[in-house]
Amino acid sequence: MTVTEHQAQPGQKVLTPDTMNNYIKNVEYAVRGRIAIRAEEIRDELAANKKFPFKTVVNCNIGNPQQLNQKPITFFRQVASLCENPDLLSDDKASIVSQLYPADALARAKQLMKDIGPSIGAYSHSQGIPAIRRTVAHFMEQRDETSQPANINHIYLTQGASAGVQTILTLLTQDSHSGIMIPIPQYPLYSATLSLVGATPVPYYLEEQQQWGLDVEQLTTTVKEARQNGTDVRALVIINPGNPTGQCLTKENLTEILTFCYDQQLVLLADEVYQTNIYTQERPFISFRKALLDHPLAHVRDHVELVSFHSISKGVVGECGRRGGYFECINLDQGILDQIYKMASVSLCPNIHGQILVDLMCRPPQPNDPSYPTYRAEVDAIFLSLQRRAQRLEAAFNAMEGVSCQPAQGSMYLFPTITLPKKAIDHAQQLGLAPDAYYSEQMLEATGVCVVPGSGFGQVAGSYHFRSTFLPEEHLFDAFCSNIEAFHANFLKKYQ
Amino acid sequence: MTVTEHQAQPGQKVLTPDTMNNYIKNVEYAVRGRIAIRAEEIRDELAANKKFPFKTVVNCNIGNPQQLNQKPITFFRQVASLCENPDLLSDDKASIVSQLYPADALARAKQLMKDIGPSIGAYSHSQGIPAIRRTVAHFMEQRDETSQPANINHIYLTQGASAGVQTILTLLTQDSHSGIMIPIPQYPLYSATLSLVGATPVPYYLEEQQQWGLDVEQLTTTVKEARQNGTDVRALVIINPGNPTGQCLTKENLTEILTFCYDQQLVLLADEVYQTNIYTQERPFISFRKALLDHPLAHVRDHVELVSFHSISKGVVGECGRRGGYFECINLDQGILDQIYKMASVSLCPNIHGQILVDLMCRPPQPNDPSYPTYRAEVDAIFLSLQRRAQRLEAAFNAMEGVSCQPAQGSMYLFPTITLPKKAIDHAQQLGLAPDAYYSEQMLEATGVCVVPGSGFGQVAGSYHFRSTFLPEEHLFDAFCSNIEAFHANFLKKYQ
Repeated sequence: MTVTEHQAQPGQKVLTPDTMNNYIKNVEYAVRGRIAIRAEEIRDELAANKKFPFKTVVNCNIGNPQQLNQKPITFFRQVASLCENPDLLSDDKASIVSQLYPADALARAKQLMKDIGPSIGAYSHSQGIPAIRRTVAHFMEQRDETSQPANINHIYLTQGASAGVQTILTLLTQDSHSGIMIPIPQYPLYSATLSLVGATPVPYYLEEQQQWGLDVEQLTTTVKEARQNGTDVRALVIINPGNPTGQCLTKENLTEILTFCYDQQLVLLADEVYQTNIYTQERPFISFRKALLDHPLAHVRDHVELVSFHSISKGVVGECGRRGGYFECINLDQGILDQIYKMASVSLCPNIHGQILVDLMCRPPQPNDPSYPTYRAEVDAIFLSLQRRAQRLEAAFNAMEGVSCQPAQGSMYLFPTITLPKKAIDHAQQLGLAPDAYYSEQMLEATGVCVVPGSGFGQVAGSYHFRSTFLPEEHLFDAFCSNIEAFHANFLKKYQ
Repeated sequence: MTVTEHQAQPGQKVLTPDTMNNYIKNVEYAVRGRIAIRAEEIRDELAANKKFPFKTVVNCNIGNPQQLNQKPITFFRQVASLCENPDLLSDDKASIVSQLYPADALARAKQLMKDIGPSIGAYSHSQGIPAIRRTVAHFMEQRDETSQPANINHIYLTQGASAGVQTILTLLTQDSHSGIMIPIPQYPLYSATLSLVGATPVPYYLEEQQQWGLDVEQLTTTVKEARQNGTDVRALVIINPGNPTGQCLTKENLTEILTFCYDQQLVLLADEVYQTNIYTQERPFISFRKALLDHPLAHVRDHVELVSFHSISKGVVGECGRRGGYFECINLDQGILDQIYKMASVSLCPNIHGQILVDLMCRPPQPNDPSYPTYRAEVDAIFLSLQRRAQRLEAAFNAMEGVSCQPAQGSMYLFPTITLPKKAIDHAQQLGLAPDAYYSEQMLEATGVCVVPGSGFGQVAGSYHFRSTFLPEEHLFDAFCSNIEAFHANFLKKYQ
């Protein structure tokens, strides 16, 4: 388009979908896309007394536990509220405040305020408060049972894992020649960010029938083909536990992926935000950090460039609204670390409330602390309930005609495959919709349940899926499953 | 660079300053640049008992009032801490909690929790909580004394004004043909973001001798020249009150700028984050929103596309660490509003703590509320102190040899011009430094005061400046000024 074409006449809009940034136009993000927007409309219409075959909208499109009434961890909120209102920490209020707060919450808040500086209302170090990065370092060292210390200068606190992923993907790419390997199906943050920078996704396919497993031979074929086609493939994204697919990788698998990254000269981006959402004993979570530090080959340990991401939004914490998280870099060039710091500086700092919760997540109450019994009970209750609901929904899906669902190993989602009747597929295509998008829309209109169609994550051509969280409250869960079952049976009947 | 050049050999780093995104490499952000990083090092060295000619580092490089012990507004923190810990709102705690919190803080927190939903730990609407956007709409209507209602669907809550500016600049540009008019001197967020998207800054110069005034004839010349040179100029950025320059524009000036935008088909981006930091009665703040709605020409009112930005980080609020703000769009294409929504969705939502403070900033206690006397006293004390410090520092600068400073009309900064001795300029150039960067570094090493050199904001070639906040505490302010004066006198002596 030439300059004169862009320059509108007075009275015409300057900024329109025709003149705007094309990269942004190409971005797709189904998790809060058309169906989720329709769900919001229905919620407003219900509030205005419009009639639907259901009374409430149930948002299973997004891992947002506290929206569906999961209670926050008491200790975390106690400490955060004390930091928020430092009057409560003053000596003259102590006798009243001690009736509301346990001693360890008060002590932790005082320690944090000392670490943070005069106020949580100040910008912090761009990379995050040093003392909180020390907490993160210690957390990773303990989690990974390694003697190798984590370097706080290689840890960056972020406004949620998404912000970190966007920074690193942008740094790694430049134009359509730059390629990043992403799983299919994938959480669409990755494809959205690559669209935004105009880079090329290099998809590799997870094996649904192998419990969404990851085959390194296939990775090798994929990278070689992409490079032969002129794509400068620079990094591999692994989401473990999987999103939307929930699988959890074995240590053997992690080890061979790291070797592959060394051999193929790829930076490894490990999205590990669901690391505590693990529902089977056979597949415990092992971090890529641990797999790298324990790797049998010294040249892999010493060279593979790893960036791993974590978040306060998932796990049993579920503090999505605060926007907090971190990433750690291993084996990255110092010049790159400096560039990441510079980019963090342009945005000044991650919000302090998110940083505080990173500290609390990484350093929860310990067995002898006054808050420990409550903390333990809350964490266990949330975890066991998530596990039961995952299994309940997996069973419900597998009992539905033409639906098949892999085991719920981890994350907050199930991603069943659905065999849709030909008539339904034809009808969807007449409407210009992906067949699973049509199915998901019909589910929303019939039940109020909002899921995300498989087409929003990518899938093998000709297969159809949807992603649903298992986050509706447990006392509503049977009704939730029955609603989906009834809808599905009706849908099949209608189109068979 | 070809693909094979990019593909490193095993054992070499994949991601290096040579292979990374060039746009990021080109980004410069002096506010937290080299001198600020050195200030952090000195702080660490002081903590480790290294000797310097001063005892503390004073960060005047950034408008971060609470870092320098400005107290947060009590009512705001009370409400926020109640939202943080909903246990405090339960009936069984009411008798204890009422000893700590005034009734209006409790009522506001209960109202906010009702508006927000089950928890502040949930992702909100991507665009921000609707009830808080209603508060913003009402605030703007009152501020601007206009009958025209603000549309909450055209308001987007953000993680600070910076995040909003980055979204809009990215949307408006695509490549090196896209141009955005930015003031010189400018807050370097603008040039940094344009570097990041590879777009072209089209600089216009503020008139230092006219109190950093803005001449519309010069704007016209600038846009015409840029277009003749093939740049597709799409928008005009105005920072009012100015940053780093502190000037506040008259309504006549705003009106002619709007006419200019109509005539030249430019979207207007109005950075109004310092709207309550106004220190002279002759130059009250008038928003571009008001100037547009009041514009005498109907075609300007109906067509000029305006995006205006506000923040909780500045004013007397100073809640930088929360990362909160908003922007409002007027006359924007619906398709563009949808695209902004989509981009907000990819980042899920602005953090809720920032959103809560937007609500509080826009709807503070009113005269008959229990918290009003304290609120009023706190706000007045902060404001009057800022005003005194602005005038004190302005006077100090103007009393220094070879230094001249325009009146402190607004914002949190002064931007004096300094006449540097030729020997100092030569010496700086031998070191490969901008002369004002050298001056600022020497100031830091001698006094612990960290300022930002004018070269970080842009300035007329051959002129030298620095930006300093006037945020050091009032009881330390005389010593702060004396330290700068003594340094300056010594610097001149050394190089004359």
